[in-house]
Amino acid sequence: MYYYDPKNRESKELAPGINAKTFWGEKMLTAVVDLDPNVHLPRHSHPHEQLGIVIEGEIEFDIAGEVKKLKPGQVYVIPGGVEHEARTFDQPVRVLDVFSPVREEYKY
Amino acid sequence: MYYYDPKNRESKELAPGINAKTFWGEKMLTAVVDLDPNVHLPRHSHPHEQLGIVIEGEIEFDIAGEVKKLKPGQVYVIPGGVEHEARTFDQPVRVLDVFSPVREEYKY
Repeated sequence: MYYYDPKNRESKELAPGINAKTFWGEKMLTAVVDLDPNVHLPRHSHPHEQLGIVIEGEIEFDIAGEVKKLKPGQVYVIPGGVEHEARTFDQPVRVLDVFSPVREEYKY
Repeated sequence: MYYYDPKNRESKELAPGINAKTFWGEKMLTAVVDLDPNVHLPRHSHPHEQLGIVIEGEIEFDIAGEVKKLKPGQVYVIPGGVEHEARTFDQPVRVLDVFSPVREEYKY
């Protein structure tokens, strides 16, 4: 099976107000992530490299103290082990995140 | 540097009618790929795992003989070494591809 439609898949709640649909291979896991308005994802880190793109809405990232508000189409790359956090404003936001290695806890 | 805006970056031509802007970390490289209408990406394979999502337009993939036309939001996962090809129709298409390990030849 090579093809997946997020529309046909239930969400997993990653944190309050943050829901994702995940898909994976052997080296990478991708998450289509929907964030509610006015959500704060607290500062955290993980050994997995993370790379993503904003699909809808505006989201502010703080990656190792570098703060930036991102719009649709903008890309971020977070090295493994680097602390980061994110917040949304008055609109819902959708991002696509990809992790390598696979985040096993995001499989469902 | 953690943030990238494809708008501020020139494209690299991957094949005739297929242009990409790439961004990478240590384990993954992502490509925002713009395909012209009526383009055929011939059958090929690479050892890198590839995972992607359609951002705009419709694109038909053939992955190991499994053919499917994908719409925006749909996801594909191509294991390393598996032959695949793609074609577009009368509209331009944008996809986001992610490769692991990094495709060194796509850095520029």
